[in-house]
Amino acid sequence: MKIDKPRQYVVDNLKYVLNPSSIAVVGASRYPVKVGYKAVEGLITWGYKGKIYPVNPRADEIQGLKAYKTVKDIPYPVDLVYIAVPAHLVKMVLEDVVEKKAKVVVISTSAFKEIGRGDLQDQLTEFCRKNKLPLVGPNLVGMGSPYLDFDCGFVPYLPVAGPIGMISQSGANLVAAIGSSEAMHLGMSFFVGLGNKADVDFSEFILYGKEDKYTKCLATYIEGLDSPEAFISACRDTVPHKPVVAIKVGGSKIGIKAAFAHTASENEGTDDAHYDKIFEKAGAIRATTWQEFLDIALALGTQPPLKGDNIVMITNGGGSGLLSCDHFERMGMPMKELNQISPMLGFKIRAYMPMFGSPLNPVDISGTANATQYKGAITQAIRDANVDALYVSICPTAMTSIEEITDVILEVYNTHKHLGKPFVMECQGGNECYDAIRKFRDAGVPAYPTAEQGVNALIALRKYARIKEKFSKQK
Amino acid sequence: MKIDKPRQYVVDNLKYVLNPSSIAVVGASRYPVKVGYKAVEGLITWGYKGKIYPVNPRADEIQGLKAYKTVKDIPYPVDLVYIAVPAHLVKMVLEDVVEKKAKVVVISTSAFKEIGRGDLQDQLTEFCRKNKLPLVGPNLVGMGSPYLDFDCGFVPYLPVAGPIGMISQSGANLVAAIGSSEAMHLGMSFFVGLGNKADVDFSEFILYGKEDKYTKCLATYIEGLDSPEAFISACRDTVPHKPVVAIKVGGSKIGIKAAFAHTASENEGTDDAHYDKIFEKAGAIRATTWQEFLDIALALGTQPPLKGDNIVMITNGGGSGLLSCDHFERMGMPMKELNQISPMLGFKIRAYMPMFGSPLNPVDISGTANATQYKGAITQAIRDANVDALYVSICPTAMTSIEEITDVILEVYNTHKHLGKPFVMECQGGNECYDAIRKFRDAGVPAYPTAEQGVNALIALRKYARIKEKFSKQK
Repeated sequence: MKIDKPRQYVVDNLKYVLNPSSIAVVGASRYPVKVGYKAVEGLITWGYKGKIYPVNPRADEIQGLKAYKTVKDIPYPVDLVYIAVPAHLVKMVLEDVVEKKAKVVVISTSAFKEIGRGDLQDQLTEFCRKNKLPLVGPNLVGMGSPYLDFDCGFVPYLPVAGPIGMISQSGANLVAAIGSSEAMHLGMSFFVGLGNKADVDFSEFILYGKEDKYTKCLATYIEGLDSPEAFISACRDTVPHKPVVAIKVGGSKIGIKAAFAHTASENEGTDDAHYDKIFEKAGAIRATTWQEFLDIALALGTQPPLKGDNIVMITNGGGSGLLSCDHFERMGMPMKELNQISPMLGFKIRAYMPMFGSPLNPVDISGTANATQYKGAITQAIRDANVDALYVSICPTAMTSIEEITDVILEVYNTHKHLGKPFVMECQGGNECYDAIRKFRDAGVPAYPTAEQGVNALIALRKYARIKEKFSKQK
Repeated sequence: MKIDKPRQYVVDNLKYVLNPSSIAVVGASRYPVKVGYKAVEGLITWGYKGKIYPVNPRADEIQGLKAYKTVKDIPYPVDLVYIAVPAHLVKMVLEDVVEKKAKVVVISTSAFKEIGRGDLQDQLTEFCRKNKLPLVGPNLVGMGSPYLDFDCGFVPYLPVAGPIGMISQSGANLVAAIGSSEAMHLGMSFFVGLGNKADVDFSEFILYGKEDKYTKCLATYIEGLDSPEAFISACRDTVPHKPVVAIKVGGSKIGIKAAFAHTASENEGTDDAHYDKIFEKAGAIRATTWQEFLDIALALGTQPPLKGDNIVMITNGGGSGLLSCDHFERMGMPMKELNQISPMLGFKIRAYMPMFGSPLNPVDISGTANATQYKGAITQAIRDANVDALYVSICPTAMTSIEEITDVILEVYNTHKHLGKPFVMECQGGNECYDAIRKFRDAGVPAYPTAEQGVNALIALRKYARIKEKFSKQK
């Protein structure tokens, strides 16, 4: 439901959504197929360190924990109440929650506005707002943080720890992102599903992320903004300090209906251009595809802004170089030739490539390049005062030790990190390349399996440098 | 070097490049860092079943095989001569090859036209053409086929067996594709690097693939076409039977120089629109990014053409549905509503979803969907006479057994395969989703980790139906 601006009492209390000392799970169930079972199970399995109070009027014990008949019956303070009971029972539970003076409430239950019961949902919102009880949901998948071993809801993974704070309206896509995190080491600081966002909105979680010490980048998956002004205001406060990435779906004709059915998002009359304007005002960086969304969030969370256009690409594969320079031009940010960037750099790099390598840009140090040649070429480029960023690609050949080259690149990267130059990797090939990508990501270097993904990452870093400058001045 | 049309003597002899009974490796080396060592090692390691004759004037034995001083000294017939000696020695070897009456020659050696020695390269071409000896290369990475356990050159993997015949000018990108094949089960029938393509050209390998029984789709990575007319002619002969996918790189300003330095490709004055026209005339389907190239080749190699626009998407994740319908519209092929496709289908599918599921299109059978509900919904849709194709997505939730659902979907797919309706999968999430993707791919179902990739696959299948119809008529 619409808000004019982010509410401070909500922002202040969101720490109890993502880092509560105690949780009551209402609708905690003895049946493994139930959400109320999964929620308790997840908390235990992932190692939640606070107190868990199952609430179930017909059980004394749930998964080895003492159960309570109602929230009011819990004799200890409760930070967060997680509700997984049928829709018609939610209001009654909320009355108990208010009486108990819990800090926040999360409603997992579906079957509200998304199936036409907006009236029922609005009653809950009004009740919570009147009582200054921040409500997250309903119709949401859960939330958590790998830094706290905290996974509440029915997300079947914890992400690997990292810089991205992910705020998603879609449960399935949030789970997909967290799955990518498991499989491809996309590091997250926290994640939260918003569902129908009856009360708490994007803006408030963005402001929470702005202050969260683990979060370096906010990534927002949006099906519809009820409160664009609040979103813009929260972003403008945030982007001088941390980048905000946004993907907006449901803009297609058929998508408008589907988004309503999914998370009750109202998109009539708001086309893609409408959202382009909102994101521009907000200083948020918009991604088009899901892959791009994840890819640029990773880069923005790990690397400094890209302050100029002088990107040097070093590769042992001419083909990856060509895919990259074509994509840079296609995206409106063509690469410069090496001698335009720095007249002597080509000669310096020449020493680290065979005669048939190519000291243009992309610099092709050739398929025979070994770790020493990578080290030499990258060191020359990163130390050059005219070079703003490095894009390094490894393509396996029978001559290439991916592992050795990965280690040497990380060594050079760590030695020169203080220079504040963005460093992006591409490693295209088989399983050993995916291993290298995970290793790079664990070390804070955004790495990708295709050339165009790395290019998108660098373009986003350039966009963020401009946004940071512009919005810092306006403060 | 330019040809006017594909040459029959070349096409006929290309079977000796991809399925030779005997290979002489000239420059076979005792030093593991040398290409000539790797080539012999690869043949042995991957299980090549023909004869291997190492040629080295200073060795009696290479890797346990008897070595010969020259090609002429080999006392047995030789199908293929693989050359890995320095550039200035190649001509001398070729004279021996002609005298030996080998069927084809492959030159791995670099440092010809790509470093300005076009004169030297042209001499080789002229010599081979005069002697009707097809020459593949120079400056190429190798070739092979998983069906024959054949990997010749320095590609460090064999792909998994499958439908794609991959013809690539870039070595590094060919290796990347084969690496993807290992990691993500992108099935290939054969692969070949063309390098500088001094003699044998795309067109001739396309015609080889047209007849090859394992090949269902030709995938071509192009840095520059010397002989566009021959390419067009070969494609027009092929596309009534098998689809041809093309990616063309080196069209950016800086890419033109880089493509020349890489594979001596001449692209001055040929912009992207120029190649669009060539591909349109040829009936080849153009991919923009590397990922799209691999993704659509997989779909075109495994699924029938998509004969109409009535695509039904079934998903348990509203978010993946939204990403998909937005992407369909963005790509100019908007989805239709379910009741437009078939008035009763929504009611029939309703039985397989909870009340809060959504029988629009995409059909959201909700995050609680189990294998039975997937089976029911898909069966209803695939049997509906108005439905042209199925796009099915699985998003993990704590309620979802990816494995069980995967198995049931494959069961429904196999039961209804005879209907000839394209079937594409998306499975977004963690490691278990990547496992499911590999399982689907092994069963001939193109499956992808993001929604937009699956959409691109379906669009390519629709394009191919139009191309097949058009070019079949013109025959």
